[in-house]
Amino acid sequence: MKKGNMLIAQSGGPSMVINQSLVGAVLAARDNKAVGKIYGALHGIQGILDEQFIDLKKESRTTLEAVANTPSSALGSVRRKPTHEDCQAIFRVLRKLEIRYFFYIGGNDSAETVHIINEEAVKEEYGICCFHIPKTIDNDLRENDHTPGYGSAARFVACAVKGDDLDNRALGGVKIDVIMGRNAGFLTAAAALGRVEKDDGPHLVYLPERPFSVDGFVADVKAAMKKFGRCVVAVSEGIADKDGTPIIAKFTQETDSHGNVQLSGTGALGDLLAKVVKEQAGIKRVRADTFGYLQRSFPGIASPADAMEARLAGVAAVQAAVNDEVSSGSVAIKRKATKKYGVDFVVVPLRAVAKETRHMPDAFINKAGNDVTQAFIDYARPLVGGLPPCARFAQLRA
Amino acid sequence: MKKGNMLIAQSGGPSMVINQSLVGAVLAARDNKAVGKIYGALHGIQGILDEQFIDLKKESRTTLEAVANTPSSALGSVRRKPTHEDCQAIFRVLRKLEIRYFFYIGGNDSAETVHIINEEAVKEEYGICCFHIPKTIDNDLRENDHTPGYGSAARFVACAVKGDDLDNRALGGVKIDVIMGRNAGFLTAAAALGRVEKDDGPHLVYLPERPFSVDGFVADVKAAMKKFGRCVVAVSEGIADKDGTPIIAKFTQETDSHGNVQLSGTGALGDLLAKVVKEQAGIKRVRADTFGYLQRSFPGIASPADAMEARLAGVAAVQAAVNDEVSSGSVAIKRKATKKYGVDFVVVPLRAVAKETRHMPDAFINKAGNDVTQAFIDYARPLVGGLPPCARFAQLRA
Repeated sequence: MKKGNMLIAQSGGPSMVINQSLVGAVLAARDNKAVGKIYGALHGIQGILDEQFIDLKKESRTTLEAVANTPSSALGSVRRKPTHEDCQAIFRVLRKLEIRYFFYIGGNDSAETVHIINEEAVKEEYGICCFHIPKTIDNDLRENDHTPGYGSAARFVACAVKGDDLDNRALGGVKIDVIMGRNAGFLTAAAALGRVEKDDGPHLVYLPERPFSVDGFVADVKAAMKKFGRCVVAVSEGIADKDGTPIIAKFTQETDSHGNVQLSGTGALGDLLAKVVKEQAGIKRVRADTFGYLQRSFPGIASPADAMEARLAGVAAVQAAVNDEVSSGSVAIKRKATKKYGVDFVVVPLRAVAKETRHMPDAFINKAGNDVTQAFIDYARPLVGGLPPCARFAQLRA
Repeated sequence: MKKGNMLIAQSGGPSMVINQSLVGAVLAARDNKAVGKIYGALHGIQGILDEQFIDLKKESRTTLEAVANTPSSALGSVRRKPTHEDCQAIFRVLRKLEIRYFFYIGGNDSAETVHIINEEAVKEEYGICCFHIPKTIDNDLRENDHTPGYGSAARFVACAVKGDDLDNRALGGVKIDVIMGRNAGFLTAAAALGRVEKDDGPHLVYLPERPFSVDGFVADVKAAMKKFGRCVVAVSEGIADKDGTPIIAKFTQETDSHGNVQLSGTGALGDLLAKVVKEQAGIKRVRADTFGYLQRSFPGIASPADAMEARLAGVAAVQAAVNDEVSSGSVAIKRKATKKYGVDFVVVPLRAVAKETRHMPDAFINKAGNDVTQAFIDYARPLVGGLPPCARFAQLRA
């Protein structure tokens, strides 16, 4: 067991339960004799470079528990991929603080950051444990059955579309809901979790895993209108044409330092799709909403299972680090093979989750590429939990 | 006491608690000997014209209670202003069904519909009680301290902006949230209800009650960025320039049958404002979300006070109708002058609430026209209820 100080930070897009992981790690470390001081860096590696730290041993248990239940990254976040020079600067600071344990909570880009820092540390022969704690509402980390943050965001999406479907039922027409998800459709797919009756929406679900054709979309909407007299569409912000070009990329150019095109924080895709339906399907009442950042930060509706697993992922990272079996890795969630839902936390190599992402398995997408399958529903239900009950009249004709 | 059958319907935009009013009225009527059959018309007056009715006496108490807790209009809705010919057709149907009690749940346009039908019925000497039951998330009905539907939508907005403010705190930059409200800023103002600490957002609040100037907006954002290092803006979809032209009207032309321009179901205003901030304030990270229909239909987060008052508004309408003191009117909510929050339900003439709307009082808006006052917070807090607690670290520097 390596004795030394610990540094923890958060990176990438916030989630509703990312602070559960932070607090899980902090409390586990506070209980462990191998860990001395616990530094929280503000705004990820930017806070290390700028030497902006808070003392997480001085935070009260009450504050920690309250923060755990608060959405968004309590330490602040950043989107920054470290260069070789950044790593040199980071190590100067970490050595000065005698950091032997480094934990970074985030998605695939954050895992890449930890991987880069770990590789550079190995080269430098700087004995530091580098661990990645998983977080992404996109649910697209490799090696994981699912990822902390997903269940709660999926719960928001399922609730939102369930309510929106009732809204559409009252006033008719076509409603298009644009949902987060750059390359993976898991979050958009969650829109289907609110369905109870056969005519409940969403009637169409478009995922980045299947090429999006405007003609096919218009034909699908027309068919749904004929069948249901109305149509609710759940569509991923990341839908792309058959050449892999994101539909939204035709309208925006902004990219982050990892080279990703900005998809969220704009209503352009929804407005484009609504215009297409109005013009090409000749439907008068067409509305589009883009759920945006609410999906990852809405307070008070976190999935209980997701919150618990996020907490345990933080605990598992600290346990793995102090156990001394491996000096780096990423905590991954594996689903137990039992009938009753349960998970195991394992440690996988950083390179196994860094950078590249995973997609929805084919078994979760219907043949036509415009809906999810029951296999997806069965997969996602325990992650999201029960939804608020909604009812309709028996509608006995008078 | 007039003996006869009853017809009830819902109209205009749905809300999270409009079914509470419906169920309140139905249960009150079921208990009353003056009322025979209870017809529910599907999709408002359209359902009367099309003779699409369900028997609300045949719905079980369990179903009624479950529907009461379900967002959106369970009978379906419509936006249709009746013509003289429509009224003639409506009366033919109502006479055939021996309807003596007509209840219509909705906002100012719906009140206008009831007013028109009532005036025509008086001319025709058709003895029917016509009552309007208030509903609007915009909170803009005259004669009312506040309106059923507002508290729950305001709760959604307050939660959403509270979470979004935490999100912005993590990643920085400018975040613009576009909130429903055609002419009244009450719903946008609710964004301020989540503030606890002095630096909590929203840092700027723009309401339709004050002329919106792009230059003033950009200057405000720059000042907030200087003060807080980040900026969250809550802006009403209905903001208009000094000539009263809605900013969004420059981008869309669609109108409904009451002559209202479509404001919701598009992200255009948010995208426009984001573009302006990027270009004129030179800020790189600017995002905009348009909350859209989620504000009125999200399940599971209704304000308890709002749900109860919506229920009682339905009960009050039936009681007023069978009491025989007036044969028409609109139920209005008056706040008690007591220190402890409480309300009275009174009946006001239909013309007093029909068509025209009310606005935020001056006392609720700050002098600069870019925020709300404490008077608004005190007014709105009991309508919305307590929000999910959010916490931050003490941030003791290490």
